[in-house]
Formats: sequence, structure tokens, C-alpha cells
Amino acid sequence: MEISRSFVAPGFEGVLDLFTFMLADDPEYSAQVAAYKDGVKVVDLTGGPHISPESITGTYSCSKGVAAMVIALLVQDSLLGLDRPVSEYWPEFGVHGKERLLVREALSHQAGLVGVEGGFRLDEFTTPKAAARLAAARPLWRPGRTFGYHSLTIGILMEELCRRVAGESLQDLYDRRIRKSYGIDFFLGLPEELEPRYRDVLYDVDSPQPWLDPLSLDGLNSNAAVSTIMELPSHRAVRAAGMSAAGGVGSAEGLARLYAAAISGVGGEAPLLTEETVAVMSQEQVWGLDRSSGLDNAFAVVFMKPHPSRNFGSHRAFGHEGANAALGFADPAYGLGFGYVPQRQEEGRTPGRAHRLAAEVRRAAAALS
Amino acid sequence: MEISRSFVAPGFEGVLDLFTFMLADDPEYSAQVAAYKDGVKVVDLTGGPHISPESITGTYSCSKGVAAMVIALLVQDSLLGLDRPVSEYWPEFGVHGKERLLVREALSHQAGLVGVEGGFRLDEFTTPKAAARLAAARPLWRPGRTFGYHSLTIGILMEELCRRVAGESLQDLYDRRIRKSYGIDFFLGLPEELEPRYRDVLYDVDSPQPWLDPLSLDGLNSNAAVSTIMELPSHRAVRAAGMSAAGGVGSAEGLARLYAAAISGVGGEAPLLTEETVAVMSQEQVWGLDRSSGLDNAFAVVFMKPHPSRNFGSHRAFGHEGANAALGFADPAYGLGFGYVPQRQEEGRTPGRAHRLAAEVRRAAAALS
Amino acid sequence: MEISRSFVAPGFEGVLDLFTFMLADDPEYSAQVAAYKDGVKVVDLTGGPHISPESITGTYSCSKGVAAMVIALLVQDSLLGLDRPVSEYWPEFGVHGKERLLVREALSHQAGLVGVEGGFRLDEFTTPKAAARLAAARPLWRPGRTFGYHSLTIGILMEELCRRVAGESLQDLYDRRIRKSYGIDFFLGLPEELEPRYRDVLYDVDSPQPWLDPLSLDGLNSNAAVSTIMELPSHRAVRAAGMSAAGGVGSAEGLARLYAAAISGVGGEAPLLTEETVAVMSQEQVWGLDRSSGLDNAFAVVFMKPHPSRNFGSHRAFGHEGANAALGFADPAYGLGFGYVPQRQEEGRTPGRAHRLAAEVRRAAAALS
Repeated sequence: MEISRSFVAPGFEGVLDLFTFMLADDPEYSAQVAAYKDGVKVVDLTGGPHISPESITGTYSCSKGVAAMVIALLVQDSLLGLDRPVSEYWPEFGVHGKERLLVREALSHQAGLVGVEGGFRLDEFTTPKAAARLAAARPLWRPGRTFGYHSLTIGILMEELCRRVAGESLQDLYDRRIRKSYGIDFFLGLPEELEPRYRDVLYDVDSPQPWLDPLSLDGLNSNAAVSTIMELPSHRAVRAAGMSAAGGVGSAEGLARLYAAAISGVGGEAPLLTEETVAVMSQEQVWGLDRSSGLDNAFAVVFMKPHPSRNFGSHRAFGHEGANAALGFADPAYGLGFGYVPQRQEEGRTPGRAHRLAAEVRRAAAALS
Repeated sequence: MEISRSFVAPGFEGVLDLFTFMLADDPEYSAQVAAYKDGVKVVDLTGGPHISPESITGTYSCSKGVAAMVIALLVQDSLLGLDRPVSEYWPEFGVHGKERLLVREALSHQAGLVGVEGGFRLDEFTTPKAAARLAAARPLWRPGRTFGYHSLTIGILMEELCRRVAGESLQDLYDRRIRKSYGIDFFLGLPEELEPRYRDVLYDVDSPQPWLDPLSLDGLNSNAAVSTIMELPSHRAVRAAGMSAAGGVGSAEGLARLYAAAISGVGGEAPLLTEETVAVMSQEQVWGLDRSSGLDNAFAVVFMKPHPSRNFGSHRAFGHEGANAALGFADPAYGLGFGYVPQRQEEGRTPGRAHRLAAEVRRAAAALS
Repeated sequence: MEISRSFVAPGFEGVLDLFTFMLADDPEYSAQVAAYKDGVKVVDLTGGPHISPESITGTYSCSKGVAAMVIALLVQDSLLGLDRPVSEYWPEFGVHGKERLLVREALSHQAGLVGVEGGFRLDEFTTPKAAARLAAARPLWRPGRTFGYHSLTIGILMEELCRRVAGESLQDLYDRRIRKSYGIDFFLGLPEELEPRYRDVLYDVDSPQPWLDPLSLDGLNSNAAVSTIMELPSHRAVRAAGMSAAGGVGSAEGLARLYAAAISGVGGEAPLLTEETVAVMSQEQVWGLDRSSGLDNAFAVVFMKPHPSRNFGSHRAFGHEGANAALGFADPAYGLGFGYVPQRQEEGRTPGRAHRLAAEVRRAAAALS
């Protein structure tokens, strides 16, 4: 058990205690956890043998929450209307019953476009060609009738909408208006020169692998014809392109600072998002059994919402977890930005480590206010 | 094992046998169970060391079913229209997207108003001030889009609607038109002079208590900033005010007689409700995963409906259970009113004791007809 | 362990290996499994002590998929419109809030008509009298608002719609246009002379049986006042009438050939259904918690769709399983028709034997293409 970074502001000592307990409990456990309150860093911890304070690693679907900040800006700037049909911005999308699907519906996993037959090549995800293939696809259910997690394709939807309404790639817009402006240690497209900081996520490879039908709903969702979800950030091509759905690379501190910047501002900067934008983007759109997983799920526009089996924050919180149980969220009720990045894949649902640490951070913040 | 009251009508001996078996199986088990068939008492049992035939105790959300009888009267008298917007009766309610929410939707847990930040004081629940705070709140989901149990606030909704359309408190209306008219041993507002009959519900206090975020959905729902659900009836102020959601106090015989009075009449009185009112009030409005608990649930207007994990009656049955597994329901298919009140908290979902006893009562009733 | 028929085409040897493994694992296991690819038989296996290659047996709700082929023909022939109200074809149906229920809704378990009080006599199911009783019933939920498996009554709905729009019984139409045309070894109405081939399904009778309230939703659904689901095909009257919901009798080869005929044609015949009809009939209509069972379910028009706990095929697959875990489906993505018939009741949900065999067949088909 080693703690390689151990900053906690007064009042947040309980977070360090819990983290220390977790490290003592499992000698292999390696993670970063960070939090900001009202725009000021209050927690920055790293511990365990497989990670360092300077490490950055794959965060899988935490990337969606990062990319959603760009969508929030497009909404805030009135370039994108949540209650407009997707096809208004993207006419080719309006086929096979998707003609009237609203932006808010498409961005809350209601499109029924979880993948395409044959799969996407890894270097294709962030391209207009991928968007064109997806737009032409027949939805797997009546659009808007139900929802099912679009593990990878929601990134394609976000990216094409960004290109259409802003004339710029989502990754470029993120870099220019968010990452550089606020000094965020999280990358949608990792520059070559930062590769030395990157470490692969550790995970168990099941053996023997059961056959995953690439044309099954699960196979489409995980792009099984081409890859598996867990390996994605291990490909330099994926890290370099920074696909919105799962290609983001960063640190826990980066995630915490991003969500803090969104609601509170950091370093004297104004908040990235207005209260109105936060309210609109964090309103729950869907809840119930997820068609893709058969488990319960809750989504706002792109962002995950807390729910009984993913209990990461107050009713106002919004964020996203990743397949390794990485977690980033903002909790406006407490003025918090939170980031958690484990180096080894773990279970993300409540009461996982991420949620226990997040509860401890909220308890400390509540006691202070 | 002791049975302190053991009345069963001919044909209902199986209920006594089952109750005797349960008492023998657990020396601490203490409960009352009662039933009426076609307005006549057929079962009245009390057993176990912690309860007497004269005891009354907290029944938690069974209170909702009792208060719903007042709502049914308001509907029957055409004072309240289930298909009218709540805001027609209560203009201040019509904000933040709640403008068009129907009475039937608000009263089947679809409003998204499970609590307020800061919580309600215990003496505030039954007041217009509580209603005003709730009306001003922003819903937690798009109203009418999904449902989630409103543990405490559905009582505030019922009470304010009653005040608005009848100009009288729900508790007063209950007392005048139901409790006194039909001689029901169940109180929404326990008179001081009956306090000697009252006993606290027994329940285990988890230790150490995990922190419940008062701003989480679960924390809002259980009013965690101020209290916990289980302690509610132990406060004299709660028993005295008789909040519709969870402040009712009574006996199993009282619950059984109330539901019998509703559908059959008792003691020569006409039924409280017409067949049409029963049909309208007991029609299922929502079913599926409950946003508040993440478990399956089914509701009519206020009343619970039987469903696979809460299998208390025929398809026509309607009633409500409480947090201690107390249960009251009517089953028009068998002409039954049923009440169950355990002194110690137990598990309420099928196949709990309440449901097994209810099945035995129905089996006996079916054999008689 | 004995294999009494063991045909596999080149490339499908893995299916035989898996089936052999299953037989070796359980000496009582007895089943048939068959598959067609692009209209040509590629798998035909029978093994175990209780079944022979010539056996036919009860397949319970697999019958629904067979009867749905007739519905598909009625849609294809423009006799029946999925987006028309049922009451347009069947005016008596249009009462108690069912006035506007669409054919596609009624045929995807959304009508709320899972049974009638008193139950149907076994010789009544396929008659207009049963249809009249069902049409007059009050729905158990707001029609179209949710869905719950109609174990037996969906057959009545299919049969009456067929009588109304085609002027002929569904069974006769099936016999004339499908069974005889394509030489399908599956019967909706088993001729007396084929009785020697029939064997009863083996299943455990729970003892003692808990009481099933015939007026509960589960009791209505299983027609408990009159029968139990598992015994149905053991009645000659049921086999003779061939009720669409659960009265079909046949072999695995028959099921596989039927689904192959539907999408590919067999023996040089054109496919029974056009691609458009397949797309329309196999589009998912409902997904989520099933009101009848409390478990997750997914339905197209009559047909089951693959979902996480019933993972039988690609996203394009459609079919139906039965209470004994029999399974028939078509998978247009692989050009497959598949049939599975166990002689003893087993668990049908993933990863049951049927789904493991189906996955092996799809893997083989995928490797060939």
C-alpha cells in the first residue's frame, strides 16, 4: 500500500481515510481520485503500485461526459436545439422512421442505432463516413419508443451534429474552448508528446471467450466484428483520434477540474455553462430497463443521472462512468466536480469504490456548508 | 406462542391454521390479521407477545390507501376530475413543466416531486406551507414520462387537492364521512385520549448507519434532512396530525372494515363507493421499474395494484402496504376487505406473511362462493 | 447417451459436438435440434432416451410463432393493417377503452386482456364464443400503455382477426397455404392418424401445488380455473383443435423448415414472406418489464425478439419459445431457420441449451459466409 499523492483540504480528511482503507484492503488496488468544491481543488489522491500522480489512462465512456460538454456549449450558443429533429441539421439521418427523432432523444440513447453490420474500423469512428453509415441504418426499435445504451455510436451522433452545426470537429472544439481555456488534464485526442504519461488499463481477459455474435444487439453495440470495448484505449489510433464515445484519456484530476469548470469555473474563470444550460442538459430524459444491457439505467442529454444502482450524487448531479469504473461528475447541489480513475477494471455499480468515495466527498462538502 | 384473539367464521379455519403456524415458527412474531366478506367480519386474529387485540400501531403507507378513500369520494362527488390538470384546482402547481400534469398522473407517482431540498419539518407535512413548497419545486423528471414512489409527498398532494376542491382538510373529511360513519378503527390524526392503545412499531436500527445524502433522490424521498421513515409514527406530532402519506394509526380490524365499507358497506350501511368509482380508482395507471426504488411497482390512482412481486389479491384488488409490511386492501372479486398489522417490521414483498395470509383468506372466500 | 439422428452439413460439426456434450452430461436429456441455411437443411439431430427422430410433441408457445406466419400473410396480402384499430375489423372489440387499440398493439401483448374470469373451456379456445367473451372484457390496464404476456389469449386475438379478414379459420389457412405447400412437420390441429407419432412433454409436477388464485393476473393468464399451462398439449382436444397460443405439435425439423420457408423458401419454392413483410413483422414493438411475469421481455408483432435474457439470434432474428423451452426462429442475417424441441421441460432463458445450440449454429453459418 502506497499513497503517492495525498492532498486533502481541511474537512475532507475522511476521503483520505476511506482511500487509505481501500488501498490497505487490496494490495493491487491502484487509482486516482480528485474533487473540486466551488472551483477550488479539495481532494487529489493517488495510490497503489500500478499508477502514479502523473499517469493518464483510458476512461472509456467517461469520454461521453467530456464530449457532452461540447454539446452543452452548442446548446448554450443556440447552435443546436434539443427539441429540433436531428434531420433538420443532418438530412441524411431522416430515413427509416428516424425522420422526427429529436436531438434530445437521439442523445439519450433512444435512436435504436447501437451499431452497424460489419462494424466500424477503429480509424473510422470519428469520420463523416461513419456518420453516413449510421444515418443510413435501420433502427433496431421504433425510435423514441424505448432506449438502450449506444456504447459507441452516441459518439458518432455527437460528432456529426457538432460538424453540422459548428463546422468544426468536436475534438477541435473541445481542445480550443474547454481543454486549453481551463487547463484540463483530459484529452479527446492524445498528443503524441504526452504518450509517455499514458498507461494501459489492466483488465482480465476471460478465457476461453464465449462467441459474441457480431450481428447480435450486444455484438453491434460493442463493435464486435472489429474489436472489444476493453481494448479500445490500448490502441494508439483510438487515443490519437479521441473518439467521443470511449477514446478519451486523462487523469482523475482532469475529470474533476472539467466538471468543476462547467458549473463553478476554476482558476478565476467564469463557469463554462450557465445555470440554465446545466438545468437543461442534466434533466433526466429516460429511465428504466436499458434495451442494450437488460439492466436499469438513467440518462439526461448524454450524461448519466444517479439512480438506485448507480448512486453517485445528489438529484442534481450529472456525469458519466466508464467500463473500468472510472467516473466523472458535477454535483451542483454541493458545488462539486469529481473524478475517479482506477488503473484496473472494477465494478462500477453501487456500492463500488467510486460511489463510496463520491459519497464521502459529498458528506464532507455537506458538513462544510 | 399465544393467540389473544382467534375469531374465524366457518370456512376460514385455514387462516387460523396458517397464523398459528407462523406464530409457532417465530416466538417474537406479533401481528393482527382481519377480514370481512360481503361486509361481515370473517377473520379477526391477534397473536404474539408484543401486541394485543386492542393495540393500534403505525401502518406507514397503509395510510395512503386510507386517505385515497377521501380522494375517491371527491371523484365520486364530481369535485375532483382525474383527467383535469392539477393546476386547474391548484394554479401555483403549474410551473416548471407541471402545467399539464393530470390529477390521475400526479396521484400515481408521476409528478417527479419526491421531496424538497432541506426537507419538511414533521409538523409541516399537513400544512398549506408544505404544499406551497412542493408546488414551487422543479420536478426530478419530465412529469408524466415515468413514475417513482413519492413516499411522503403524495400525501401533501392529496391533502392540498382536498383543501382546494372541498374546502376542508382531508383528515377532517375522513373523520366525518368515513371513520365515524362506519365505525373504523383507523385514525388519520390520533385523538389524545386513544394514545394508551398505541404501541410503537419495532424495527432494527442498522448500525452503523451509512450516510444517506439528503439531496439524493432517496434522501429527498425519505425526508432524510429531518427524519427517517421508520421513526415517523413514533412521534406524537406525526400521529396527532395524521399525515396522509404515513401518519395513520390503527388496527388490522380497522383496515379490513374500511376496505369492506368501501366496496360492500358494513353494519347495514350502503357501500362508501359505487362500482363505477371503484373501477375508476382501481384501474392501473403505471407499472414497471420504480424510479425511486429501482424495483418493480404498480399503481392505480394512489392505490397499489397486485403485481408479481406484490401479489396480494385478484386482478380487481386495490390497497396499500406500509414500510412495516402492514397491508390493507379490498378485493371486489371476492367481496373482501383485508387488514394486516405486524408489530415488528418485516418484509412485505411476495411471499411475505401478509401475502400468504391474504391468499389463504381468498382461498377460503373462493371455496364459499 | 444415444444419438438417433445425426445429420450435419460440412461446417456444422460443432453443433453435433455441443449436442453430444449435452447428451453425455445428462442421461435423461432428450431433444431434437434442426436448422436450415438459405433454404437447405444443415442440421438434423435427435438424441436421448425419451425421443425419436419421428417423434412430435407439444411446443407450447412456439405455436404462436407458427400462427404468426398466417398473420404475416394477412398483412402481406393487405387484408390486415397493423396500424388500423382492431375494432375496424372486429367492432365488438371496441369497448372499455379498447376502441382505438391498433392491431400492432393488440398483437404485441398491449391489450390488457390476459384472460377472463371463469376461464375458457379447453374446447372453447378456438371458437368465436371465446373471442366474444374476450372482446367484451375490461382490460387490466390502459390498453397500449404497457404490455404483459397474453399466454393464451393472443391466440384468440389472432384467430378472430383471421376469421374477420379472411373468412377462414387460422388453422385452415395455415394448413392450406403453409403446411401443405411447404411440407412442414408442424401442426395447428394434429390429424388423428398422426397421433401415434405424438409423445407427451415430460415435466415435474410441483407437490404440493401452492394455490393459484384463478382471478389473479397470473391465474387469468394461465386459465387456472380450468387447466394448467403445462398439461395443455397432453389433451387430445387441445392437439386436435390446435389453438394458436399453445396447441401446436411438431418436430424441431418442422419448426426449422417453417422459418426457413418464411425467409428463404425451401425445396425450390419462393419464400413465404417478402423482405418487406419480414421487416414489418419483426420490428420490435415493446421491451421492458413484462406486466404478467415481472421479467424482461421483447416482442415484435406476435414474434419474440432476442434480448439480453433471451439471446437466441442476431438483431434481425424473430421467433418464439415455448414453456418447455422449445424454440423456433428465423435469422435473416444468416439465412437461418432453426428449431429445437426438448422432450422434458427445461429452462429457456439464456444461457439455456436452446440458446447455446442456436449460437453454435449461427457461429457455423457466420464462418461459412
